[in-house]
Amino acid sequence: MHVNLNRLREALLTMARIGATPRGGVTRLALSDEDRQGRDQLAAWFQEAGLQVRVDDLGNLYGRRAGATPGAPPVVLGSHADSVPKGGKFDGILGVLGALEVVRTLNEHGVGTQHPIEVVSWTNEEGCRFEPPIMCSGVLAGAFTPEWVYARTDRNGKVFGEELERIGYRGLRENRAGAMRAYLELHIEQGPVLEAAGLPVAVVDGIVGAYWLQVTVEGESDHSGPTPMSMRKDALVAAARIITGVRDLAAQLGPDTVTTVGRITADPGVFNVIPGKVVFGVDIRDPQEGPLRAGKEAVQALAERVSRDEKVRITVEQIWYMDPTPFPAEIVETVAAACREQGVPYRHMTSGAGHDAKYMAHIVPTGMIFTSSVNGKSHCEEEETPWDHIGQGANVLLAAALRLALRV
Amino acid sequence: MHVNLNRLREALLTMARIGATPRGGVTRLALSDEDRQGRDQLAAWFQEAGLQVRVDDLGNLYGRRAGATPGAPPVVLGSHADSVPKGGKFDGILGVLGALEVVRTLNEHGVGTQHPIEVVSWTNEEGCRFEPPIMCSGVLAGAFTPEWVYARTDRNGKVFGEELERIGYRGLRENRAGAMRAYLELHIEQGPVLEAAGLPVAVVDGIVGAYWLQVTVEGESDHSGPTPMSMRKDALVAAARIITGVRDLAAQLGPDTVTTVGRITADPGVFNVIPGKVVFGVDIRDPQEGPLRAGKEAVQALAERVSRDEKVRITVEQIWYMDPTPFPAEIVETVAAACREQGVPYRHMTSGAGHDAKYMAHIVPTGMIFTSSVNGKSHCEEEETPWDHIGQGANVLLAAALRLALRV
Repeated sequence: MHVNLNRLREALLTMARIGATPRGGVTRLALSDEDRQGRDQLAAWFQEAGLQVRVDDLGNLYGRRAGATPGAPPVVLGSHADSVPKGGKFDGILGVLGALEVVRTLNEHGVGTQHPIEVVSWTNEEGCRFEPPIMCSGVLAGAFTPEWVYARTDRNGKVFGEELERIGYRGLRENRAGAMRAYLELHIEQGPVLEAAGLPVAVVDGIVGAYWLQVTVEGESDHSGPTPMSMRKDALVAAARIITGVRDLAAQLGPDTVTTVGRITADPGVFNVIPGKVVFGVDIRDPQEGPLRAGKEAVQALAERVSRDEKVRITVEQIWYMDPTPFPAEIVETVAAACREQGVPYRHMTSGAGHDAKYMAHIVPTGMIFTSSVNGKSHCEEEETPWDHIGQGANVLLAAALRLALRV
Repeated sequence: MHVNLNRLREALLTMARIGATPRGGVTRLALSDEDRQGRDQLAAWFQEAGLQVRVDDLGNLYGRRAGATPGAPPVVLGSHADSVPKGGKFDGILGVLGALEVVRTLNEHGVGTQHPIEVVSWTNEEGCRFEPPIMCSGVLAGAFTPEWVYARTDRNGKVFGEELERIGYRGLRENRAGAMRAYLELHIEQGPVLEAAGLPVAVVDGIVGAYWLQVTVEGESDHSGPTPMSMRKDALVAAARIITGVRDLAAQLGPDTVTTVGRITADPGVFNVIPGKVVFGVDIRDPQEGPLRAGKEAVQALAERVSRDEKVRITVEQIWYMDPTPFPAEIVETVAAACREQGVPYRHMTSGAGHDAKYMAHIVPTGMIFTSSVNGKSHCEEEETPWDHIGQGANVLLAAALRLALRV
């Protein structure tokens, strides 16, 4: 049994028009009007496929296909529908529409399962508008309370709970996913490994850990002309030294460590004023806890050194931590067997990015399937995956889901 | 004859309430509602003082006190009323209200002059909202055309000409200052030199030159997790290397050179995306042309080196140049004599900041008087000047204006 790639392509391209950007990407920020439009489309498709649709108190959207055995826990398949600003058209949504295509294929072939199959679209995976990422699958795993999530604000002061209400997707707590047989997520790799290896898919062994640190540098605002260099407390020069230092850290920490400064603001931010305050974010990732912790300590030490040299005040605040998460061998083996069954060449790899599967792994046997990323690019409008790889990934999802759901 | 410091203080504090910030500064951006309020207040005061008020096609606001000799060109005294975001309460406005206080003092003592005396408040000296700075005295000096000025836009796309119209200060071209006997500007030092020397005022010998360069770094946006360090084209790391390099340049260029990066934006600017595009500004200042030009070339060379190392595209665009401007000996000597006449201790110095006096010096014999800045601070809410220094500066302005205006 194979999925219908034409139908899956049609669904992906339809969804890509919601929040479409001029250069072929999408901007569908969590709880925006575009997010609402996307949800409405998903819910309509779920209903057309005969799924029982429900929304939980976090806006997570579910569609359930009944199983034959009463009380058997569902096999849950999904991912997220939100995007980063100017993101790509596959990131997240591929896992939701891939799952929908699995259901449509089962319907078409009249195949029933003992376990129910649920399609899920998690709220706010990206964490760009409301930090941190992977927020609402995180609540199910006990990582965050719903009250804390509701109180998160975006840069314009909009509140998560009010925005969720505004778009009409604040559902009921009792609608949350309960006990599950397994959770499977199909996702683009978002890196260059598969393409370099000439492979369409990967069986994911687990997810790297990550620290997000917010660094605040406080110096003194002064006019750029009459302030001698020796009397300056320039917050941006200090920040720049840390930014280059953070990049250089990666090579010292380990072969798999990556470090990134993705955002920065300088205040007051005009040509002829020495910046008095600079805030920026540091993202450190590694599959192992040791290098992660060493990385955090190294950023702190670097900040202290630069603080002394540049006569500025620097604070390093941990705003998110994700521990490295290996997936259980049973699910990893099931996904690998599904690849072999479908004749899809694959390799094993660890995910460099966080995913909803990370938190699901805390509460349910979890696995992931990656499809290749052209030029390794994602979180940008140029994000691409060859359509045949999309089809191969969805076929692996179908086969793995059947292996888990067919029999109790 | 001395100015009335209480009256001058009252005027300064009244004006400081327009656009007041919580920490004692002001935000009175050019052509904002606050700028309009400030202009309305100035015009009312000018009228109360018996001045003939007029506005030119650039919004420059004049108040004229007649002289006894028909056709004698005016001695013009003034500065600007706009501020940077969260700027100080003396920067600019001191020169306008100091000039008004000169007129009020002459009125009070019934002193007439052969030359008319004009008070002027120039539009958009700061150049924070509409770049570049010193814009509308610059038009009078032929540095910019009014058409080019009208078409300038702010970050929100608002157009200079429309905003000038909106606040009701687009006057007539024939109202521009014509031939002038001299131009004098009282201003805060905005640096630490006078305070370090324990002096209230300086006689300004001239103004440093400056380059403003806009640097654009284009790399590639990628997800921060799965993109190996070796495959990144990180625009922010490249920018950070240039920012520290620009700071280090100053010491190599000359003892009086200052270099500043005051503003920076990183796109898309989120935690988990490698910045694909970073734009920042470089400000280089020196009293001499040689180090200035060498500085500009060094930034270009640095950009080329970093571009190769970091595999990013970097463009360096000159967006403003101000040549070093010495003031004529006649006016410098007149201001120094005014200090001695008023018993005010002084030193000579070169201004590190640009001022409207810079462009006025192109078309009329020009001089400046500085008052001290507490901790050398300006362009910030903490900007302060001791009131007795304010009074001494205004007395020097009074005496210098009389020396130039009393007799033809």
